[in-house]
Amino acid sequence: MKKPAWVIDKERARRAAAAETVWLFGLHAVRDALVNPSRIKQRLVLTKNAADKLSEAIAQGGLEPEMADPRKFPVPLDPGSVHQGAALEVKALDWGPLADIAVAGTGAARLLLLDRVTDPHNVGAILRSAEVFGARAVIAPARHSAPETGALAKTASGALERQPYLRVKNLGDTMQELKTLGYVLLGLDGTGEIEIADAVADLGDRPVALVLGAEGPGLRERTKSLCDHLVRIPAAGAFGSLNVSNAAAVSLYAVAKG
Amino acid sequence: MKKPAWVIDKERARRAAAAETVWLFGLHAVRDALVNPSRIKQRLVLTKNAADKLSEAIAQGGLEPEMADPRKFPVPLDPGSVHQGAALEVKALDWGPLADIAVAGTGAARLLLLDRVTDPHNVGAILRSAEVFGARAVIAPARHSAPETGALAKTASGALERQPYLRVKNLGDTMQELKTLGYVLLGLDGTGEIEIADAVADLGDRPVALVLGAEGPGLRERTKSLCDHLVRIPAAGAFGSLNVSNAAAVSLYAVAKG
Repeated sequence: MKKPAWVIDKERARRAAAAETVWLFGLHAVRDALVNPSRIKQRLVLTKNAADKLSEAIAQGGLEPEMADPRKFPVPLDPGSVHQGAALEVKALDWGPLADIAVAGTGAARLLLLDRVTDPHNVGAILRSAEVFGARAVIAPARHSAPETGALAKTASGALERQPYLRVKNLGDTMQELKTLGYVLLGLDGTGEIEIADAVADLGDRPVALVLGAEGPGLRERTKSLCDHLVRIPAAGAFGSLNVSNAAAVSLYAVAKG
Repeated sequence: MKKPAWVIDKERARRAAAAETVWLFGLHAVRDALVNPSRIKQRLVLTKNAADKLSEAIAQGGLEPEMADPRKFPVPLDPGSVHQGAALEVKALDWGPLADIAVAGTGAARLLLLDRVTDPHNVGAILRSAEVFGARAVIAPARHSAPETGALAKTASGALERQPYLRVKNLGDTMQELKTLGYVLLGLDGTGEIEIADAVADLGDRPVALVLGAEGPGLRERTKSLCDHLVRIPAAGAFGSLNVSNAAAVSLYAVAKG
C-alpha cells in the first residue's frame, strides 16, 4: 500500500531535521563544544595555529581534525564570521522533553519564552543571561526564531553548550502545557498594567515563565492572551525601549530578587 | 617666533576633531538625526524610495538631499551596513561640560561610566538602556572606546540623539571629579564583595555612578581603585557571565529600584 502524502512529508521532515547540522566557529565556541560530551560532532577543521591552542580540547573531543590553510578556510561560513581558524560541524543538542526540564530541572523554576525573536545575537545574549540567572530553559518556536547557528553560539559565549535552548512546534500549546504544570506566565509588554517587581512579589515561590516578544512587533495577540499577567519594566521617560536581550536580563534579575 | 612642536600638534588635533564627521545610516537613525535641532548636518544622501519615506523629516532637517542610485550608493560605509537607502553625514553631538549634566541634569542623579568598552553594538544598546532608566549620561574615555559611529547609532535606535554620550580625556580624572560632586562610584565586578542591591539600599538618594569594564579584561586596576565599592550582580551558578550591555541594564534597574 502506498503511504499517504502527509506521511511521506512528515517522514521527510524528520529525516531532514535529523540530518541537519550547523557549523560552530571561533576558538571559544569550538572549545566548549568539543569538551561537551552531549554534542554530536561530525567534522573539525582547524588551522595549525588554532590546533595548537585547542590541543587539550581536541584530545577530549575524540575527533580527528582536518588541517586547513588559513587563507583558504574550507568551511561554508557567512562572510565576516570571525572563525579564528577553528570550525566544528555539529548537530543541534537534544535537551529532551520540555516537561522534564520544566518540572524536574535544577534550581528555581524559571523559564524564558521567546515569541519570534529572530536575531541570533539577541538570542545568544539571552542564553548567557539565562545561564547566569539559572533559568531552566529558553524556549522558542521551531519556526520564526533564531536557529542554533555559529553566530548564535559565538554570542552565547559558551552558554549554548550548557543552557537548554528548546525549539517547540507551537508556542501557544507550550504555554498551555506550562500552565497545567503550575507555571505563572508573565508577558513583558510596555503597556503592561503591573510593574514586574510587583507581580513577582505576589507569587511567592511559584514557577515563573517570562514571555518576551521581538522588538517592534512585541508579543503576538494570541501570546498575550495566554499570559497570566502583562508586566512592564519601569521606565524613567517617555522615549526609548530596551533591546530584547536587555529586557530579558532585567526580567530575570527582577524575578531572582523576588 | 616659531610655535613649539607640541603647540602645533595640539592645534592640529583640535582642528581634526572639529572637522571630524560620521556617517549615520538606516531610516530610523537618519530620521532621528534629521529632526534633532542640535545635530550639525553636512550631507544627506538618499534613494528615491528612502526620500519618500523620510519626506517629513527632510522638511524639518532643512538640508537638501542628494539623490542616489540604490545600486551605486555613494557613501563610504562598512560592508554589510544595512543603510536602507539613507545616509547622513553629521558632527558628533556636543553635550557641554560633564559637571553641568552631572549636577544640574534632570531626573535622579545616575551616570554610567564605561572603561574601554569598544564594541559599538554594546555601547549602542547601553545608550538605549541609559535612556530608558533615565541616566543623565554615559561617559567613556575618548580613546579605547566605541566612537559615535553609524553602527553605534543604529544599535542605539534613536537614543544617540537624546541620551548624552560624553567622551572624556581621562576616566580616572573624571571619577575623581565626580567624587568631589558627591557621586558614589559603584564598580561592577564579578568578584565584588557586596551585591549591587545591598550597596544601593545603603545609599539613600545620593548620586550614583555605575562603572563597567569591557568583557574579558573587566575594570582596569586604577579604575577599580577609584571606585567606592565593587559590587556584583548575583549569579545562580558558577558558569557564564552577562554581556556588558546586559550587565549595564540590570545595574541601572537595580539602582532605579533602590
